[in-house]
Amino acid sequence: MREEALSSFIEVPAESDFPIQNLPYGVFSTRSDPMRRVGVAIGDQILDLAALELAGALEIAPQGQRVFGCASMNRFMALGREAWTHVRGRVSSLLRADNPELRDDMALRERALVPMRHASLHLPVEISGYTDFYSSKEHATNVGSLFRDPKNALCENWLEIPIAYNGRASSVFVSGTPVRRPNGETKALGAQRPSFGPSLKLDFELETAFLVGQGNAIGEPIPVPDAERHIFGMVLMNDWSARDIQRWEYVPLGPFNGKSFATSISPWIVTLDALEPFRVAGPRQDPMPLPYLRQRGEHAFDIQLEVRMRPAGAACETTICRSNFKTLYWSMAQQLAHHTISGCNTQPGDLMGSGTISGATRDSSGSLLELTRNGGEPLTLANGVRRSFLEDGDEVIMTGWCQGPGYRVGFGDVSARIEPAVELHWSADATTKGVS
Amino acid sequence: MREEALSSFIEVPAESDFPIQNLPYGVFSTRSDPMRRVGVAIGDQILDLAALELAGALEIAPQGQRVFGCASMNRFMALGREAWTHVRGRVSSLLRADNPELRDDMALRERALVPMRHASLHLPVEISGYTDFYSSKEHATNVGSLFRDPKNALCENWLEIPIAYNGRASSVFVSGTPVRRPNGETKALGAQRPSFGPSLKLDFELETAFLVGQGNAIGEPIPVPDAERHIFGMVLMNDWSARDIQRWEYVPLGPFNGKSFATSISPWIVTLDALEPFRVAGPRQDPMPLPYLRQRGEHAFDIQLEVRMRPAGAACETTICRSNFKTLYWSMAQQLAHHTISGCNTQPGDLMGSGTISGATRDSSGSLLELTRNGGEPLTLANGVRRSFLEDGDEVIMTGWCQGPGYRVGFGDVSARIEPAVELHWSADATTKGVS
Repeated sequence: MREEALSSFIEVPAESDFPIQNLPYGVFSTRSDPMRRVGVAIGDQILDLAALELAGALEIAPQGQRVFGCASMNRFMALGREAWTHVRGRVSSLLRADNPELRDDMALRERALVPMRHASLHLPVEISGYTDFYSSKEHATNVGSLFRDPKNALCENWLEIPIAYNGRASSVFVSGTPVRRPNGETKALGAQRPSFGPSLKLDFELETAFLVGQGNAIGEPIPVPDAERHIFGMVLMNDWSARDIQRWEYVPLGPFNGKSFATSISPWIVTLDALEPFRVAGPRQDPMPLPYLRQRGEHAFDIQLEVRMRPAGAACETTICRSNFKTLYWSMAQQLAHHTISGCNTQPGDLMGSGTISGATRDSSGSLLELTRNGGEPLTLANGVRRSFLEDGDEVIMTGWCQGPGYRVGFGDVSARIEPAVELHWSADATTKGVS
Repeated sequence: MREEALSSFIEVPAESDFPIQNLPYGVFSTRSDPMRRVGVAIGDQILDLAALELAGALEIAPQGQRVFGCASMNRFMALGREAWTHVRGRVSSLLRADNPELRDDMALRERALVPMRHASLHLPVEISGYTDFYSSKEHATNVGSLFRDPKNALCENWLEIPIAYNGRASSVFVSGTPVRRPNGETKALGAQRPSFGPSLKLDFELETAFLVGQGNAIGEPIPVPDAERHIFGMVLMNDWSARDIQRWEYVPLGPFNGKSFATSISPWIVTLDALEPFRVAGPRQDPMPLPYLRQRGEHAFDIQLEVRMRPAGAACETTICRSNFKTLYWSMAQQLAHHTISGCNTQPGDLMGSGTISGATRDSSGSLLELTRNGGEPLTLANGVRRSFLEDGDEVIMTGWCQGPGYRVGFGDVSARIEPAVELHWSADATTKGVS
C-alpha cells in the first residue's frame, strides 16, 4: 500500500500539517482534564494516548507500566526504536478510515479524541541537555564575515567537524511562551568601558532540532551508521539571540548570556519515520571528513522552512525568510556521532539544535543579523514598517513542512512575542536594589 | 558559645575533614541497604538523615513528605535557606557531646550511624545544568598566553564580566569513577589535515563548584546581595580537559568534546554555613565592575587546595599544586548575578564551576597545561617519573579544606584514575564498524 493512499476517518484537509502520514507526538492538557499527557496530532484533533493506554487499546510498556500518562515524552522515548515503530503502526491503524476499531467505538472516541482548540500544548520533553550545532555553511560564513573577518569568514575547523556548543537547557520553552528582552552588558565599538541595559540587537535564529530517544552510555560512542536509531524526532526551534551581548562575551568560551535567556521549540515532535519519504542527499562534503564522520547514503531531509514576522501592533505577517533543512552541510547522524566520539553520554530528551539554517541567498537567511547585515540594511515589512532587529511586541513565527503528493508532513509552528526588558533599579551604593 | 568549642560524642581527630563544625551532605548506600539516601559526614561516620527522618527525629518537609530518603539532594535543596539552617542546627544539636538525645539512644544510633568505610558514595545531586566559569585571572592569563597571544593574553571582556560557558551535565561523575581517555579529532600545527585518535594532551583542572539550592524564575535575575541565599554549598571539581581536542574545536563557540567526556566532583557538599567562619575579601577589582556586578563586604572564602598525582604503577603520590579559592577574581555571588542578569532561570541542582584555580606562581597552577607550559617543561614526580600530560593509569587527587583553630572544615577529595581510550575500528568502506 502506498503511503499517500492512506487516509483517516478523521477528515484532514490537504494543507493540514497533521495528516495520517505524520502522527507527531506532543504533551497536552485540557481545561476539563488538566493532567498533562501524551497525544498525537491528527488534523485538528489530538489522539489522547494516555486514554487509549488506560482503555487497553494501546499496550506498549512492559509489565503494565504506563508511559503516556506522563507530563513528558521521556519515558516513551527511552523505550527505543522498536517501541516507537510499534506505537506508530498501532496509532496509524487505529486512525485508518477502513479500521472500525476506534472509528465505530463512540465511547472510546469521546474519551480519546480532543479538539486541538480545547487543548493547551506543553513542552513535550524534559530536556536533559541542550546542544546547539552550527551546521549551515552559509550561516557560519555570514556570521564570520560580520563578527570577524570577511576574508577568513569560515574557521579552519568548520569543514572538518560539526562545530557545536552546549546551550542552556533550563530556558527552553514551548512555542507561545513570551520572550522577555534580556538585559546585559555590551560594549560599543571604540567605547572605553562597557555599558548595561536591554539588548538593542535582539534576534531570532531559524533552526530545527532533533531529540535523542535512547542515549548512549559513557565511553560508548554512537557510530554514524547507528545514529538515526537513537533519534526520536525533530522540532522547529527559535534560538533567540542578543547579538550585542553575544558579541561582547563570546571570546574565548562561546555564547552564554546572549543565548541563555530563551529558546523556543514547536510543541509537536515529528518522528524520523514520518520524515523518511523526504530523505534526500545533503551537500557534497569536501574535504571528505575523517572516517568517524563519513556516511553513505542520504542523510538530509527536504524540509521547507519559513519565517514570518508580525511587527508590534500590526495585523498582518510578512514572510522574511524561506529556507530548507536539506542545505545543512553536516547531517544529524554526523552531529550525534561527533557529539559522542569523545565518549560523552547522551540521554533521552537531549535536544540537539541544527544551528541557524541559512541558504545561499539573502532572503533565505535565518536570522536578522544576516537579513539586515547586522542592522545596516533594515527590512521593510508589510505596511512599510522597518526592522533592523526585533522590537518589543514583535512576533516571530516559524513554520516547516515536507510536501508529499497530496499531503504535507508539517511541524506546525514555533512562535513567540517579545516582551519589554525587566526594569532594574540600583540603590545609591550601587548594589542592586531589586527587580520590578 | 564559640564554634571551635563545639564537640561531638563521635570522636573526630583534629586532622579530620568532617568535624561537627562542618556537617557536609552526601548521598550514600550500603551493602545491607542499597537504597540511596542523604547523609551527613561526621568523623569517619555517616549520619543517615533518612533513618532520622523515618524515626521522627528530623522533621523538615511539609505535610509529612520525606526529603532525605531520596537518591539525590535536590528535594532538600529546593526547600531553601531557612530549611537548610534548621536542619543544620538540628543535626549539630543531635551530634553534640552534651546532648543525650542521640548519644544515649543506642537503638537509634545503630540505625542512623553508618561507618563511612561500609558506604558507597554517589553523585549527591541530580545536576540540572552545568555552567563553568573562568574566574581565575592567573589561569585566564596563562591559557591566553599558551593558546593565543602572550601580549594580549587576557581578553578585553575578562575584567568586566565573569566569563563562563555551558558545560555538559550528563558526564558529571562522583569522585572515584574512572575517566576514560577521549578519542577525538585534533590538528597538529602546520598539518594539512586533522587526524583522529586518543587525546595526547589529557589534563586535569583544579576547580571548586557551587550548587544552586533554590533557583530563580525566568526573567527574575538574582541581584548580587541576594545571591548567597540561593547557594546551597560547594564541592571540589576536576574539569578533565583534552587540550589537543579543545584547541582544535574551540573557535568560535567554545570548548565542547575537549571537556564533555568527564567532570568529577567530590561526594560531600560543604554548606555555605560551614564556610562562613572562613569568609575573606577577594582581590580588589579594577576597573570597578558595572553596578549589577558590584558587591560590598567579603565574598571570598579561604579554602586551601592541593592537587596530588599518583602516576601509573607508583605507590606514592606527589603534590604538584597548592592553590587557594580566595584568589579568584570573581565571587560566586557575582557569578550567579551575571548568570541570571539576562533573565536566565536557574534550578535546584545547577552546578557552577569556578574555572581552574591558579595562583600567581608556577606551583600554584591548577592544570598540567600551565604547570608544564603546554608539555614543554615536564614535571618530575617522586621516583623520578616525568609527566607532560596524563598517561593511562595515572591518578589525580584533589583536596581542599579551611583551617580553623583546632579543626578543619574539609571537602574530602575528588580523585579518579585514567583508563585507556576505547579502541575504535573502521570497516573497509570507512564507515564506523563498531566499538570494541
